[in-house]
Amino acid sequence: MAKIVPVDNGSKRDVVIKSAAAMFRDKGFAATSMRDIAEQLGVEAPSLYNHITSKKEILGEICFGVAKMFIANLKEVESSSSSVLNKIESIIRFHISMMVEEYKSVYISDHEWKHLPEPYLIDFKNQRRNYRSKLAALLQKGIDKGEVNPVNPHVAVLTILSAIGGIDNWQRSSKKIDRKTLEENMVKLLIDGLKK
Amino acid sequence: MAKIVPVDNGSKRDVVIKSAAAMFRDKGFAATSMRDIAEQLGVEAPSLYNHITSKKEILGEICFGVAKMFIANLKEVESSSSSVLNKIESIIRFHISMMVEEYKSVYISDHEWKHLPEPYLIDFKNQRRNYRSKLAALLQKGIDKGEVNPVNPHVAVLTILSAIGGIDNWQRSSKKIDRKTLEENMVKLLIDGLKK
Repeated sequence: MAKIVPVDNGSKRDVVIKSAAAMFRDKGFAATSMRDIAEQLGVEAPSLYNHITSKKEILGEICFGVAKMFIANLKEVESSSSSVLNKIESIIRFHISMMVEEYKSVYISDHEWKHLPEPYLIDFKNQRRNYRSKLAALLQKGIDKGEVNPVNPHVAVLTILSAIGGIDNWQRSSKKIDRKTLEENMVKLLIDGLKK
Repeated sequence: MAKIVPVDNGSKRDVVIKSAAAMFRDKGFAATSMRDIAEQLGVEAPSLYNHITSKKEILGEICFGVAKMFIANLKEVESSSSSVLNKIESIIRFHISMMVEEYKSVYISDHEWKHLPEPYLIDFKNQRRNYRSKLAALLQKGIDKGEVNPVNPHVAVLTILSAIGGIDNWQRSSKKIDRKTLEENMVKLLIDGLKK
């Protein structure tokens, strides 16, 4: 599994991005202003502009940062010699880890990317479509090899990624289920649904 | 399966609610103003107040309207004499139908309920928690009877409901997959993941 590199790496710029990510996720991108972000950080709004030019720049950093990690993991998994089903399980586990460790950024890149300005919007949409197509192609390979139950691979990708996205609900809850129980049971359900 | 009663039933008040629902889903509740809703309807903002007192009243109508339909369906399914697995399949199909036919309202009741004012917020949270607990109890009954694979029932509920919630992505897409393919494949994946 690829290493999860936090979007925040400690610079002032990254402190701004991390703080903004928390607000974007809680209030939504559209309802968050640069003034809100400054207030949360306890600084004057103009001083934010030393580190970042706009709200949309922050959104771009978050969305493309997350996409980069998923793409890097997929490349690593694709080049391994595991069975298709093991590859899919490894990708599912990476997505779950990202939703557990970097859920604010992942949530934003999944729900708020529509607010990206062009040409970033089209670029992001292409990356998102390509990623999902590659997952569907991997599932199709598993079906062709007889490892995976015959199922529409695009519906399977939608089902798997949406199920994992629901971990955001777990993050917002009082977490009566521990992380290991969550991961193992979700993997079991999704993989048993695919296994032949 | 319970009948899906559209939130909109044709009165002027319901026209306002339906129009607002579309905006809440596209822009988010926080970023939508009563003025935006009036503009979209081509009326002056003050005339809206003849039909509705506030944005939060609209949100309440949507959230509790959706909750009522899910609760009615669950009651109907629970009182039937089917096997547990068939009951779960029937509930999954009802959720999918709602996401296909009433997705704007369902999306809002799933993502924007946090903006409800008290005492509605606590009421809605309780209804939501009770509904999910009843689904988990039904799954546990299936496990006890040996019909359902031993799995943490709360994680299973999270996985199933989140997977179906992802149909919002399908609604936003160019819909290269038809509705029947979507439903049958999603049901198969989720039920095969549960079946013993």
